[in-house]
Amino acid sequence: MKRRTFLRHSAALAALPLLRIPPGAATPAAPARAPLRVNGARLNGWLASFDAIGRTPGGINRVAYSEADLAGRGFTLDLFRQAGLTPRIDAAGNIFGRLAGSDRSLKPILIGSHVDSVTDGGNYDGPVGSFGAIEVARSLREQKARLRHPVDVVVWSNEEGGTIGSKCAVGDITPADLDKVARSGKTLREGIARVGGSVARLGEAVLAKGDLACYVELHIEQGGLLEQAGLQIGVVQGIVGLRWFEVTITGFANHAGTTPMDQRRDAVLAAAKFTVAVNEAVRGVPGRQVATVGRMVVSPNTTNVIPGQVVLTVDLRDLDSARIADFTERFERLGREIGAATGTSFTVKRTVDSDPAMADAQVMGWIDGSAASLGLTRQRMPSGAGHDAQEIARIAPMGMIFVPSVGGISHSPREFTKPEDVVRGADVLLNAVIAADRA
Amino acid sequence: MKRRTFLRHSAALAALPLLRIPPGAATPAAPARAPLRVNGARLNGWLASFDAIGRTPGGINRVAYSEADLAGRGFTLDLFRQAGLTPRIDAAGNIFGRLAGSDRSLKPILIGSHVDSVTDGGNYDGPVGSFGAIEVARSLREQKARLRHPVDVVVWSNEEGGTIGSKCAVGDITPADLDKVARSGKTLREGIARVGGSVARLGEAVLAKGDLACYVELHIEQGGLLEQAGLQIGVVQGIVGLRWFEVTITGFANHAGTTPMDQRRDAVLAAAKFTVAVNEAVRGVPGRQVATVGRMVVSPNTTNVIPGQVVLTVDLRDLDSARIADFTERFERLGREIGAATGTSFTVKRTVDSDPAMADAQVMGWIDGSAASLGLTRQRMPSGAGHDAQEIARIAPMGMIFVPSVGGISHSPREFTKPEDVVRGADVLLNAVIAADRA
Repeated sequence: MKRRTFLRHSAALAALPLLRIPPGAATPAAPARAPLRVNGARLNGWLASFDAIGRTPGGINRVAYSEADLAGRGFTLDLFRQAGLTPRIDAAGNIFGRLAGSDRSLKPILIGSHVDSVTDGGNYDGPVGSFGAIEVARSLREQKARLRHPVDVVVWSNEEGGTIGSKCAVGDITPADLDKVARSGKTLREGIARVGGSVARLGEAVLAKGDLACYVELHIEQGGLLEQAGLQIGVVQGIVGLRWFEVTITGFANHAGTTPMDQRRDAVLAAAKFTVAVNEAVRGVPGRQVATVGRMVVSPNTTNVIPGQVVLTVDLRDLDSARIADFTERFERLGREIGAATGTSFTVKRTVDSDPAMADAQVMGWIDGSAASLGLTRQRMPSGAGHDAQEIARIAPMGMIFVPSVGGISHSPREFTKPEDVVRGADVLLNAVIAADRA
Repeated sequence: MKRRTFLRHSAALAALPLLRIPPGAATPAAPARAPLRVNGARLNGWLASFDAIGRTPGGINRVAYSEADLAGRGFTLDLFRQAGLTPRIDAAGNIFGRLAGSDRSLKPILIGSHVDSVTDGGNYDGPVGSFGAIEVARSLREQKARLRHPVDVVVWSNEEGGTIGSKCAVGDITPADLDKVARSGKTLREGIARVGGSVARLGEAVLAKGDLACYVELHIEQGGLLEQAGLQIGVVQGIVGLRWFEVTITGFANHAGTTPMDQRRDAVLAAAKFTVAVNEAVRGVPGRQVATVGRMVVSPNTTNVIPGQVVLTVDLRDLDSARIADFTERFERLGREIGAATGTSFTVKRTVDSDPAMADAQVMGWIDGSAASLGLTRQRMPSGAGHDAQEIARIAPMGMIFVPSVGGISHSPREFTKPEDVVRGADVLLNAVIAADRA
């Protein structure tokens, strides 16, 4: 991802405390009459059928642009048709379907998610929100709840490869990006063509600011906060900003037997001190910031040689851009200090940088009111993972609904969300759309 | 290596302080008359010619049993012949050549080293002591210094693969060992046959306790102690014991964005804490013990996933078996403590274990006296690296002579010992042999 700066990333908003809201608490946006319900059995039936597509012994493999992704999109297109949403594939390969509104002057309410998966992933990350949105539109039609706004259902293409479909929709893809090779082994250019798009017409896929009334995405949490708190719904406050560092630590490889301890320039020791210090720095202040040393490559990586080089990565996330900047400075200073103390040198390179994307206060209110009307327990919380919603937040008021992930596990064949939680999430989406329509 | 326990490994001896001896200081074993000298130009000429064998862009590659090793052994056999030492290859592939003594009742004084190299190594580790020993025998013959004892020159086969030739000579190779694959890609069984030995007759290569008067090996230091102290000769007190640990740390792989810091079971963080703690433990007490985390393999090793597993190695060395046992206990305790604190589990496995091998006090005296007679500065010191001498110490009084390694660098194409230091080492070996003969 490229580095971006947006005025919407307010540190003040990010500092909002997590708010545990009692079920049934009155909110201004709560619908006045009894809430509608989706057909939960039908929705979970779709998920169960979908589980067979791309299923391998290692997990679900519907990597974007693969055969299994094409099969998954075919299944999804059928659901659009069955819901009476004539599907249209835009130039970026995103699938759109519209439920018409009564007032032609109003902009559409956009709801949806994605159906591609990571390698060896699960069946819930993406499909819950995609099928949930289709089910919401179908329920609105079946229950003859004609809205003023059109409701557009979207299934973004290649979310797991870096929110590619939604990036195209906000015009943030360069020709150079299109030549990058995706996990499927195909370039984005090839992949987009394969799923029915056309890079020559990518401009036609771009949505401008003001084109949408709002965007609401239902998704599994992919973490364990809701489960641990015993709550049913997460009202997402924003999607954390992400910064990736590649740190190269250079020492001097030497004989492990003949080099005295006080004459070493040990790159693994320096890497270890840095890893501990980064962890302590991030844990040393209150907040939900996270930092992870996930990758470490040691050279020469031999039992009897003092390591001469380590390349490691740090993944830093927070909802507050200013804090990300502060931690960046601290990590760089720690590198200099530990380098000086261990006779090694640290080179810190930023490889990925994405700003936090804040949810819209009014959209959060609709989600909250919807959950309240359904008697569901909920809390406001950040999303630690990236989503298409972070791209659409650049052109429209955005909100996200989280449902619990069992054990907090995601991107894994063990990823699971209980059927009743899937239905709760779709019910909240349905009534949030109705609230948005009334606003 | 297998675990062994020998009574000769005295903790009391290991505790001897490093002794810096003034040049010319009187010692009981100092020769009465002017010391002999080797032909230094000839010796360095051999080393210069040998540098062309196995030389690659990455360094010297005369890995045991390879074509380059065979070429190096061919060169060496010629040197034996030119020195008037009719070479004999024993069943283990070791090369022996004898300079006869005047008293047929006396056991031979054995001197030598090896000529095989590590991958991408240098030209000094092994050849200096091997050619030095040939030069000593040739000088004795040329200078008509007829000794009472026979002087046997040996070039051990496959030292770098785990002192294989000298292990065979003390009967410490099992049939299972012979099936292990060496760095050349050949089994020891195949390799020994390739260099002219015969595993069927390995028993004939075994030397018994009492078969040798003593064993003296000249070698480069492979560390920087002599250079830093500004001294010319190291009188080796013993070869450190070695213990290798393979530590498997099991945590739980999870999403780097959605898993709060206080709910992680991060295997890399645990590995980092362990690495720092091992370093502090070893540096926290006086002595020359060393411990190295040289290898670290992280799973899944992905920037945005909290690592679920790390496998790392610790290489621990000391001249004192009791201290090796103490540090082993400390490392195991650190693993339990850090595992409990980080929600991970540590499994500590010992993969290699070799006991310290102490030099013989009388042999050290001869070396010391020889260096004194030559006016050379010197100190007593441990060997942090393993040598064939550690095997022969099990059946004969052993001593080693170290000469400085420039920059302390070894097992590297940058390995270098100055020509004048090579000559000093050979001169010390020559006069130590004479002293041993007179004892």
